[in-house]
Order: sequence, then C-alpha cells, then structure tokens
Amino acid sequence: MERIDIAIIGTGPAGISAAITAKVRNKNLMLIGKSSLSDKVSKAHQINNYPGLPAVKGEEFSKKFQEHLNDMKIAITDQRVSMVYPMGEYFGIQTSEGMLEATSVILAAGFAPDKTFKGENEFLGRGVSYCATCDAQFYKGKKAAVIGYNEESELEADYLAEIVEEVLYFPMYKKEPVVSKGVKVIYEKPVEIKGGMKVEQFVTAQNEYAVDGVFILREVISPVKLVPGLEMAGNHVKVNLQMETNIPGLFACGDIAGKPYQYIKAAGQGNVAALSAAAYLDALKRKNNHNQEEK
Amino acid sequence: MERIDIAIIGTGPAGISAAITAKVRNKNLMLIGKSSLSDKVSKAHQINNYPGLPAVKGEEFSKKFQEHLNDMKIAITDQRVSMVYPMGEYFGIQTSEGMLEATSVILAAGFAPDKTFKGENEFLGRGVSYCATCDAQFYKGKKAAVIGYNEESELEADYLAEIVEEVLYFPMYKKEPVVSKGVKVIYEKPVEIKGGMKVEQFVTAQNEYAVDGVFILREVISPVKLVPGLEMAGNHVKVNLQMETNIPGLFACGDIAGKPYQYIKAAGQGNVAALSAAAYLDALKRKNNHNQEEK
Repeated sequence: MERIDIAIIGTGPAGISAAITAKVRNKNLMLIGKSSLSDKVSKAHQINNYPGLPAVKGEEFSKKFQEHLNDMKIAITDQRVSMVYPMGEYFGIQTSEGMLEATSVILAAGFAPDKTFKGENEFLGRGVSYCATCDAQFYKGKKAAVIGYNEESELEADYLAEIVEEVLYFPMYKKEPVVSKGVKVIYEKPVEIKGGMKVEQFVTAQNEYAVDGVFILREVISPVKLVPGLEMAGNHVKVNLQMETNIPGLFACGDIAGKPYQYIKAAGQGNVAALSAAAYLDALKRKNNHNQEEK
Repeated sequence: MERIDIAIIGTGPAGISAAITAKVRNKNLMLIGKSSLSDKVSKAHQINNYPGLPAVKGEEFSKKFQEHLNDMKIAITDQRVSMVYPMGEYFGIQTSEGMLEATSVILAAGFAPDKTFKGENEFLGRGVSYCATCDAQFYKGKKAAVIGYNEESELEADYLAEIVEEVLYFPMYKKEPVVSKGVKVIYEKPVEIKGGMKVEQFVTAQNEYAVDGVFILREVISPVKLVPGLEMAGNHVKVNLQMETNIPGLFACGDIAGKPYQYIKAAGQGNVAALSAAAYLDALKRKNNHNQEEK
C-alpha cells in the first residue's frame, strides 16, 4: 500500500486551505471528503469578512475554492472516513472504499453538535458502527438498523441489504428515501440502543426492534469517535497554535478545532496545520535518515 | 477625546482582516498604519496559497484588500504608533500625530526586521525575501544566499536546497550549522545586496558572490518595547487560540503573534482577534451597565 504524506479529511475551507499549502510544500497529499465541497459554504447567503473577496455569495465562494483546487491540480477523493487509527509512525484510515495509510493526518471535518444516542458510546464496536461498507461482513444473515442522515446513506443501506438478512432504515431527513426492496423504511424517531454484551434492541419513540447491529451514518462523526485517544477541549479537538493535537502527526483545523466558526479563520488554521504536518514529515525524515546512518 | 472601541495597529492581512470583521460586528474602529498597506504584501511576487485567490500577484492581492476596505468604508489612519499604554479599562496610544484612546487594541504590526542590510529594502520582492518556504519556487535552478539567524533557518536552507541550484548559507549565530550537503556554509559577514533590476550580487566583508536571491531569515524584534508588561513567547507576543494576550483588552494576530508567516494565517487570526475584541467590549458594557444599575 502506498503511504500518503498527508491525508486531509474534510473539504470545507480548512481542508481546502490545508491541501493547497501542502501542495505548495510539494507533499504527497490526499484530500478526502465530498467532491461537492461543503454544503454549508455553497449555501451561505453572503460572506462579508473573507478579506480579498468582498460581499461574496456562497455559491461563488465555493466556485472560487474549486477553481483554486483545479488550478493546483488537487483532486478530491470522494470517500467517507469512518476511523483513523494512530499506528505510531503512520495512521490507518478506514474509508467507505477500504483502508489507506498516511504518515500524517489533518482533521478538517467541521463541527456537528455531538448528539449521541443513548447506548451509542457503550456499544461502539459491539454492534454500533459508523460505516456499513466497512462492517457489513460481520452481520451476514443478521438484522441491522440503519440511521441515515442523507441520501448517501441509502446506498450504504442497499449495500448492507445484499449481505445481512434484514435492514431497517430510519431516515433522519425530509426527502423520501429510494432504497432497494431488501431495505424496510421506517419513519420513527431513534431513541436508544440496548443490549447485553452486544447490541440486542433498537428503540424508537414508537417501537422496539430486535437487531444485531446499528449503523449510524452521520454527515460528521464526532472526532473523539473518529480517532481513538484524541484529546478534546469540550466538544472540540484540543489544539495548540500550531494546530497540533495530543497525537504526534495528527493535526486539526477549522470548526472541529473550536470557535469562532468563520471561513477565514478555518482557512488560516488549515494553512498552519499543513505547514505543521510538513515540518513533522521533515523531522521524521531527518530522524529516520539519522538512524539509517547510525546502523 | 473620543474613545475608539477597537484600535487596530497594522495594515497587513491580519490588521485588514481584523478591521473588516470589527466593521461587520458594528464596532467603532480605527485601522492605524501605512495607507499603502503592507510593502511585504504588495511586493510579493506571487501568492499561491490564499484560498479563493489562486496564483495572485502581490500587487493584485494588495489591490483586492484595498477594494475590500473601500467596499466596507474602512479608512486607514496613516500614523506610526510608538507606544501603547494599558490604563485599566482603556489604552493610551501614542502615535506620530499625538495620543489616542481605545477600549481595546489589536496588535497586527507584523514582522519588524531590526537591522537592515544595504540594498535590502531596495531589492525587497526583486530577489530579497524573508521566507524560504514561501518563495523558493521562484529560484528553481538558480543561486541563493541565505542569512540565517538561528537553527530554524537551517531547515529553510535545506528546503531551499531541494529546489534551487546552489545555496550559500551565512550563519549569524555561534552554533555550527547542521545542514544538508546541498547547502554551503560560509562564515563571512554580510554587508550589501547589489544588482540592477534584480539582485545580482551578495557582498560580504570578505568576498562577493553572484546570486539571484537573498533570503534574510531574521528573528522578530520585541513588541514588548511597544507595550509595557506584554508577555512574550520567545520573540512573539504570547497569545492563546482566541488571540488574547496577557493584558485584558489587548489582542495580537498575524506575524507578531508567531509563525508561520503566512497571509492566510494572518487573515484568519485577524478575524479571531476582532471577534474576541468584540466579545470583550460586550462583556465590559454589560458589566458597566450592571454597576450603573446597582448605584
């Protein structure tokens, strides 16, 4: 497996800025996220305080970012990251398409209010999963509930239905889901996940379902669930001014790293994170060369 | 004397960004500095990593900032600040034109070289640069001199050596430099930078070298001279992630607040500093209203 220098997770202003600076620094990078960029950006009415782009509409702003990426030949890898495993001198990144390896990682996945279902944390890895394509194999012939937060979740539910015995799909959005006939859509409000050693019941405001697994397909995964051992400051990733987290080689920037939630602040932090990642890589290279010479 | 809500010192990307956000927040602000904006910005050859403005020339970049200020009706007060006195609930600001009063102050005065080499100002942007990682790309296959003021400069020289043809390294400190073999260390005293339209020679007390670029990697002059009692972190103003200094009501952002020296980082920090200043003002107003009611 080819190891990427810098994996950047998130395609909002922070992630894009990090990618641009990483590219300027000649690093081998991967920008992972929605190829449509951040919805939050493109749907913004007007941004007045991004210096250099006065009174810019969200759609135009998003277009300018896309143009900058095109200009620098930076492609977006349209995948959903479900886990980042710190492995010492590199990171294992589990995405909807498989595993990746990167020497450093920049978290720029934005901020989503941490609304955890009752039992979710307790059963994480024991029946609760954030990625259907990653973990479907463990539920062959079993029953699973899927909490879907957008239309992309429908594809994961369909995929799941090819492997598991029964899929119950709980849409958390307005649009009527289009799913394969193996997926049963239920319009009920999820409340709790229950069980013993493993998940056994999925409880809604209206009913209780016997299931073996619950797939929660949020747009943004709480960072502490994304990276085991990551230190938080309240609901945000704890960073210093260099955007370093408590895990060497792991950086965070933008909304995920704290308030204010501002585009120019996110872009600035993305730049700092990328330079810190580049410095980390250079120092690691020096150290390894040095060790090589000593042998 | 009318008291300003927020006095912003410096008209580089950090100060401009702070002014724009302060204006959005409806604060009574004064933006103090060169009305020609930052020389460093307008003389920059090309900026590649300010998201939304791909491959923008320094002059164009500076123009866009000026347009944004015009658009928001923000005027620059062209004065030189010589002292900032913390007075408790306000600050006294001594400028070349007299005294000002402000409830809060944002320091965005940038990087101030302490000793200028002959020819340095003349060739700034035409072969003289203060950041190897920023400008190395323009010297591909060329010759460059690096004046290094500390060990961190060695990393920049190493980086430069990966791109330029030849790097001459002039250490301005005692410790023997550890650099890659592409960097030639020369123990001579830099004297002058010479050339025609662009840098052509680098002159030391002992010799003259034909070069295309001179990188001067100075430490920053102490802003503690500007504000009595200001706490520093090395050569930079000590700030937290909200850009607060140790003095209530005083904020710092951009190069003065630490590395990296990058436009997008400076603009991001300016935004955060302005929002923190606005929050400080709001809290102060509440407190004073409360005290009024108690009387």
